[in-house]
Amino acid sequence: MTLDLSLPAPELTAAICDINSVSGNERDLADAVESALAGFGHLSVSRSGDTVVARTELGLSERVVIAGHLDTVPVAGNLPTRREGAVLWGRGTVDMKGGVAVMLRLAASVGTPRRDVTYVFYDHEEVEADRNGLGRISRESPDLLAGDFAVLMEPTAAAVEGGCNGTMKATVTLRGTASHSARWWMGSNAIHAAGDVLDRLRRYEPQVIEVDGLTYREGLNAVDIAGGIAGNVIPDHCVVSVNYRFAPSRSEADAEAHVRDVFAGFEVAVADSAPGARPGLTHPAVASFVAAVGGTPRAKYGWTDVARFSALGLPAVNYGPGDPSLAHHDDERVDVGEIEQCEARLRAWLAGEQ
Amino acid sequence: MTLDLSLPAPELTAAICDINSVSGNERDLADAVESALAGFGHLSVSRSGDTVVARTELGLSERVVIAGHLDTVPVAGNLPTRREGAVLWGRGTVDMKGGVAVMLRLAASVGTPRRDVTYVFYDHEEVEADRNGLGRISRESPDLLAGDFAVLMEPTAAAVEGGCNGTMKATVTLRGTASHSARWWMGSNAIHAAGDVLDRLRRYEPQVIEVDGLTYREGLNAVDIAGGIAGNVIPDHCVVSVNYRFAPSRSEADAEAHVRDVFAGFEVAVADSAPGARPGLTHPAVASFVAAVGGTPRAKYGWTDVARFSALGLPAVNYGPGDPSLAHHDDERVDVGEIEQCEARLRAWLAGEQ
Repeated sequence: MTLDLSLPAPELTAAICDINSVSGNERDLADAVESALAGFGHLSVSRSGDTVVARTELGLSERVVIAGHLDTVPVAGNLPTRREGAVLWGRGTVDMKGGVAVMLRLAASVGTPRRDVTYVFYDHEEVEADRNGLGRISRESPDLLAGDFAVLMEPTAAAVEGGCNGTMKATVTLRGTASHSARWWMGSNAIHAAGDVLDRLRRYEPQVIEVDGLTYREGLNAVDIAGGIAGNVIPDHCVVSVNYRFAPSRSEADAEAHVRDVFAGFEVAVADSAPGARPGLTHPAVASFVAAVGGTPRAKYGWTDVARFSALGLPAVNYGPGDPSLAHHDDERVDVGEIEQCEARLRAWLAGEQ
Repeated sequence: MTLDLSLPAPELTAAICDINSVSGNERDLADAVESALAGFGHLSVSRSGDTVVARTELGLSERVVIAGHLDTVPVAGNLPTRREGAVLWGRGTVDMKGGVAVMLRLAASVGTPRRDVTYVFYDHEEVEADRNGLGRISRESPDLLAGDFAVLMEPTAAAVEGGCNGTMKATVTLRGTASHSARWWMGSNAIHAAGDVLDRLRRYEPQVIEVDGLTYREGLNAVDIAGGIAGNVIPDHCVVSVNYRFAPSRSEADAEAHVRDVFAGFEVAVADSAPGARPGLTHPAVASFVAAVGGTPRAKYGWTDVARFSALGLPAVNYGPGDPSLAHHDDERVDVGEIEQCEARLRAWLAGEQ
């Protein structure tokens, strides 16, 4: 599969979406990205697993990192893409192959940017944090991510979104005693015991927290439940998996303490977590970017890899085409005008007169 | 594998338990039963699937059907059996290979019973009702089950237990709207919605109902729960499976109406059901059996295939070795004295002087 980077960004987005790259299956798309960029003399291209990094090496005084992930959540009968007027439908159109298309177009065509640019196309963003390609590069080759400022092209409906909420996955395990269901009083039903866990989730009042002038909305939700042995057996265990999205003013330790407090008295285990990122909009490099692309910055709700740049010391914002509330939906779709707008504004910022 | 029917019943029970016959995997045991009985001239042996029927054909005026199932629920690290003094531990020791051993011993050694006997060893009792081997025979060859009275050797701790509760499996399905869990307010959480179902189950007050002089205890329990799409997605469905055990005074239609009433407002579907059986202890044939084996009859809580004999017009009781409250438990075990007692009393009843 090859990608024609001379296609307009909306058509290029459709071509990228049509290369299935559900997490773990990014190789075909990474190959296509690598080979599409390999021919440009102004780029130094490297590959690690299914992550591709392309850098200009002009020796300029400032360097910006522009990053986007290649993978998507599972396809739900929504590929191949279809175009209806100004709307492109299908898995990946929002999260986040429109941004990938813009990055590819800029990498290919902006040969003399006003600041050096590092384009990072990475794998495994939609799964457990420890498989994340950007995380892997930051551990193995942090120099590849060096810079003064980072733009992560996650969907923001072409607005600047600062920072992000943190995210934590935890399990609450209920234990009972198995018995034949005809003599249920000899056992103890672990699924019934989960009723109290679900009641706490239904009563839970998520907080809204202001950080550095932006407003973050938290949430605590069950994302999985499983219990049962057989149709005639009182179940002796049930596991409720929950996902806590927490404001960037809380550390991961704060978040864990909060989850344990909500489920006090139950068996709680943290499965996975990633810290949030404060908005960082007061940093001069971020302020100049915001001024260049326009609009009023707002808070990012979803956890994004801006937190990884934040941990590396780079201020970073989210900026990309697509309505983030449609990410992961079966009816994921993008207004192609947003893709064109993001490309035009980033191009002006990167290539425009000093 | 061969079975030596000259072994004492406890040792024969251990040998039968050690032939794994979890539902769907009864063939080895059915083969062993068929070949063990094939050599006796006083028996007419037939086979259907993994059900074996052995009949005396003496032309006597009365015929009793003695039945037991060959399958067990899944093994839970409790095979092979182990013997500790008078206790035999392991899957099947209670439900119900002690009864099968007694049947085999009687079939082999009581060549001139005072009434003709039909021994039925059948498959698929521990799974969905429509796979039950006794049900299959009753549909395909009802003549094989003809008789005046039936004894089902389900575990009763060597007491006569009359009738049985009915059983119904139903699902309650919750539907929501999927969304990214970082923007949970765009979705609707189906697992949270299941909290109300579990609350109703926890508040439910099961009834105790007297039928024909025996007391039946009902129960309504969740036996399975499943919901969830991915760790970062608000789940759009959740299914709670429930098992209702109902007194034999209720029909299956009554039972369904009751379940629908308990879960009014929810999407309810009946997956499987089987009617109960009234105790029938006033029938002369049943009364004479009770007098012969002794003790005070009580109600059977678990659903058993006495209901199938009841539907065919045969009065039937449960009578077999093993504490039924240990059926399906990981620590299933039997006092071998009960096996010996059941064999002795049935032998006296079948072979004793008129």
